[in-house]
Amino acid sequence: MGSASNTRIALGIDPGMAIIGYAVVEARGDELSMIACDVITTPAGMPLAQRLQLIYRGLGEIVTTYSPNEAAMEELFFAKNARTALTVGQARGVAMLALANGGLSIAEYTPMQVKQAVTGYGSAKKDQVGEMVRILLHLSSIPRPDDAADAAAVAICHLHTARYTLQQSFPTAQEGTSHGYLITE
Amino acid sequence: MGSASNTRIALGIDPGMAIIGYAVVEARGDELSMIACDVITTPAGMPLAQRLQLIYRGLGEIVTTYSPNEAAMEELFFAKNARTALTVGQARGVAMLALANGGLSIAEYTPMQVKQAVTGYGSAKKDQVGEMVRILLHLSSIPRPDDAADAAAVAICHLHTARYTLQQSFPTAQEGTSHGYLITE
Repeated sequence: MGSASNTRIALGIDPGMAIIGYAVVEARGDELSMIACDVITTPAGMPLAQRLQLIYRGLGEIVTTYSPNEAAMEELFFAKNARTALTVGQARGVAMLALANGGLSIAEYTPMQVKQAVTGYGSAKKDQVGEMVRILLHLSSIPRPDDAADAAAVAICHLHTARYTLQQSFPTAQEGTSHGYLITE
Repeated sequence: MGSASNTRIALGIDPGMAIIGYAVVEARGDELSMIACDVITTPAGMPLAQRLQLIYRGLGEIVTTYSPNEAAMEELFFAKNARTALTVGQARGVAMLALANGGLSIAEYTPMQVKQAVTGYGSAKKDQVGEMVRILLHLSSIPRPDDAADAAAVAICHLHTARYTLQQSFPTAQEGTSHGYLITE
């Protein structure tokens, strides 16, 4: 899938260990359209190493199939549960590696940035975000499951946010700044 | 580096984002020897995706260079700091993927299991573990930095523990059981 000079294809990822949402969204100028949107799932009973391989290979195939120009992931916040943070962190690291090894730059956005970009309101609820995804991508219904819709929201956020910061192959900021790896609030 | 029928080569990993310890330990019957032991480091100012690529490629090269038969990692425990857990989790997931994509099975051990296996005492202190690593591997000094010594301890733990559970290509137990991905205490 090639891209004309004013066409951008963004891959949005909602990372997790059991369910990884992804969405491939195309922007032609101001016009957005959905190319693909689904989830990769890994069985809870499978050894961790194999689950990570499924995520890595699955995302690698998606990059090969759709040839996105850019990728974006939501940052993760865990105030309380370190156990969950470690598990999701392992999946997230592998997802990020799959995109980087596929030659993609990866932008990261806070949940608030994603909500703000999609709905204009940083504290929007999940169903409001889903409905705006549906409208902006001209879909007949909100993508399911939620992880797929969330991935589409991240892709839309990136396409809106990064219009003026293109061609930066990697974020150059350090950890903790707005375009680097931000996990603080 | 080939391995005779009664020779095993284990790769031990102490995962982290900034420093990843690794040790390649050979067992000929009951006799252990160190083949390689060092750390991979990633700069704090580097974008996360590139740090993960450094870890993945570095461990991939180690697997290619030393052709270990098996791999082992320490499980991670974070009671308090979810932020650290997420960061380390990302590095740990990529490290595990590198080993799995290198064709290795990966065993996991709790810190207490490692200490017990190396010193005979599950609450041993770090310098006691290091000293036993030095003695068991016939070294003139304890490997430095600590992450390298910890990786050697994990490899020794695996070579001792897994003597009777060889040839199991992947742990088949589910998460939460002793050979699967265990993060509970």
